Formats: sequence, structure tokens, C-alpha cells
Amino acid sequence: MKAIVFDVFGTIVDWRSSLINQFRALEQELGIELPGEALTDQWRQHYAPSMDRVRKGEIPWTGLEDLHRESLVKLLKQHGITLDEATIDRVNHFWHQLDPWPDVQRGLQQLKERYIIATLTNGNLSLMVDVARYAKLPWDMVFCAELFQHYKPDPEVYLGACRLLRLPPEEVMLCAAHNYDLGAARALGMKTAFIPRRTEYGPQQRKDLEAEQAWDAVAEDLVALSERLIE
Amino acid sequence: MKAIVFDVFGTIVDWRSSLINQFRALEQELGIELPGEALTDQWRQHYAPSMDRVRKGEIPWTGLEDLHRESLVKLLKQHGITLDEATIDRVNHFWHQLDPWPDVQRGLQQLKERYIIATLTNGNLSLMVDVARYAKLPWDMVFCAELFQHYKPDPEVYLGACRLLRLPPEEVMLCAAHNYDLGAARALGMKTAFIPRRTEYGPQQRKDLEAEQAWDAVAEDLVALSERLIE
Repeated sequence: MKAIVFDVFGTIVDWRSSLINQFRALEQELGIELPGEALTDQWRQHYAPSMDRVRKGEIPWTGLEDLHRESLVKLLKQHGITLDEATIDRVNHFWHQLDPWPDVQRGLQQLKERYIIATLTNGNLSLMVDVARYAKLPWDMVFCAELFQHYKPDPEVYLGACRLLRLPPEEVMLCAAHNYDLGAARALGMKTAFIPRRTEYGPQQRKDLEAEQAWDAVAEDLVALSERLIE
Repeated sequence: MKAIVFDVFGTIVDWRSSLINQFRALEQELGIELPGEALTDQWRQHYAPSMDRVRKGEIPWTGLEDLHRESLVKLLKQHGITLDEATIDRVNHFWHQLDPWPDVQRGLQQLKERYIIATLTNGNLSLMVDVARYAKLPWDMVFCAELFQHYKPDPEVYLGACRLLRLPPEEVMLCAAHNYDLGAARALGMKTAFIPRRTEYGPQQRKDLEAEQAWDAVAEDLVALSERLIE
């Protein structure tokens, strides 16, 4: 095993708390009421369906940033919230400032000493570069769906990263908090590591609480994973 | 200006001394004679012509790693040197372990505090990731010709990086030790910074000793550039 690629939203960053906090700060700044928690959860519910439109060829390639904005505009309309274009852009930009889970920086630094570490994310490149700078993530490379014009779980994304690394899939591990993502990687011959993020979707989360297959590694967090992989 | 992208071979790393040193170490290890300096200089002379075959469509897309190996095999034959396949691979891998110029790590760290910093290199991705790990280069992103299936100075490489960064060319600066590279970037509207590397090609170097146009910034090295750009 030479390289570990990481899912980012949920696995590396706590997007939900980060968005709710930013909605709250904006609410106070603008002196308006924004149902931050509901907006965050509903916005994320648009995530998979919006990418599926691209995956099924209903619309041409569209970066996540642009899918996010379309979903946001719909959502604000449903809630009867009126914001000017600049403020909508600003809210869309919340996704560029996401806090890492507490174990991430130390875990990645340790894993980087032994393995190539990279993202493997559906986020677009500029968003991911901003997240990495904001959260101080020491990636060796930022692989994202945009480079391959396919969204996960399309095989092109996983195999594209392996091809660019010039490694066979069995020498590349995907680390993710989502069983479906690991399933796609395993089907292509990659190694798999599951890290639970039991509050990614808030206190009521019901999926991905546990490993659903015997993944190659299962650990409580990235620090534990680094200890498991590096003796 | 939001981002600075850097040429790597010559601008960031001293490929010539690094290769010569590695040839010398191999010579001692194997107990054979290798004309390391001549091999290094002649190998690099194949660089532009080999990429031109791709750029002119004479051969399909071929990564630098593979062009390097073809040139090396020819060169060894010319010199009447016989090495086994594993040793040829090992020599080809010299390009993955290149030392940075002494100002690079400090200069990049300083520039990274203010700007997105990325490579913009003809090296293939896995080579560049290895160089970054070896030389401890804190890139936010590794952009390389391979992502765009075009070699510099084809416009696709420069514009591809700007597009992925979601920045107009005038908000992206190319930093390079080579006037031709900066000329290509300027023609596309990018900002330009020249750093002389007067011994890149050894003591007899005759080109790129000075800035040949009024580039947006000219500085002796990356530390000086960071002081120029960040007051």
C-alpha cells in the first residue's frame, strides 16, 4: 500500500456544524432570521440528487460549486427568504470554510510520513484547495471529481486517481466515513478504511454508524487509523 | 492576484546537481564508470524535443516519465553502457528525488500565507508528488501537463490551471526561471515573475541569465519575491 485517498465531506470535515455556525454568524451580522439548521440539512439533501443529474447525463458536466448554488437558490425560494446575489454567493462560499474533525490534522500528518495522502472528493478543485488551506490539511495532491468529469461513485474517479498516481488499485486505499463509497472502491480492487463519523448528519444520524462490510481497516478516527497502519 | 503557479524543473529544484549526485552514488555502489555529468546534460537535451513530438501530434499523449525513459535508453546505447531493466528504472527514478534551491522552502512558506501556491509543470503527476514529498514543498495543488494532456508552452496547460482555480488569468501569476515560459503565460493574460537560476544548466549556462522582458516581478530568488509581493 503506497497511497491513501480520502473522502472529504464528512470524513475529513464537519460540514454540518461549520455551515450552521456560518449561518448563525450571518444571521447576527445581517440582523435577519435564517433557519440555519434546516437550510443546512435540506441543502445537503440536494447533494446526491444534484450530482445524479450529471451522472445520468441529464445535464452536462457541472462543478459542485454550481450545483450547490442552484440548490441554494431553490431552497431560499421555498423558505421565502430573499437575499441579494452577493449574499447568495457568500452563503455558497460557506463550503470553502469547513472545520476538520479534531483528529484530522494529527492523523494526516502521521499518515503522510509513510503514505502519499490525497483527497478523492466530489468537491470542485478550487473549493477543495480553499478547504485545505482553511483547515490546514497537508495533502500531497487534491484529486477531485472535476479532474475526471465524473462524480463518485462513478469508477472513473477512483481509477483516475490510481492512474495518475501510477499505482495499481490494490496499492491505493480509500478512507471514508461512508460505506457506499468504500463499496465502490473495493469493487475496483482498492483497499478500504472506514472511520465512523456518527454525528456528521447531526444527533439523529441513522446511517454509516458502523462498518457494513469487513473493510481492510476500521478505526475510530484518523489517529487510530495511523496507529493501526503504521506500527 | 490570488494564486502563484510555479515551473518546477530549474525554477524550484536543481535537477542537474541532483542527477549528477545520484549518478555518482550509483557509480560507486555498482562499481562501474558512468559519465554522470555528460549523461545528465544529454538527457536534458532530449527533454524539449521529446515533448515536441507529443505537442506536434507525432505520437499520442505520453507522460514525461515515459519520455525520460525512452531518451535514457537511447543515450545509454550511444554511450555503450549496458544496465539491466531494473537499474534503468532506478536511474529514471532519479527525477523523483530532486533537491530544491536553498531559498525555496522558506520562500514558498511565506508566499503560501498570502497566495494559493501550485506547480505548473511538464512533469507527470506521480513524479511531481514524489518531488514535493522529497523536497518538502508545501503546494496547495499539483497542476501538471498530464492533467491537460498538453505540454507547456501549449496554452491548454496555463488556461487549464486558471479554469480549475476558477480565476481569470490576470489573477494568476506564473513564476519561472525561463523567459519562454513567462512569454507564453503573458500572452494568455497571466501575471509573470522571473527568478534567475544562473547555474541550472551548469557553470557554462548562457540563456535565461536575465529577464528578457519587463515581467511583472523580477527577483533574485523566492524569498526576495515574497518580500516584493508581500509588504
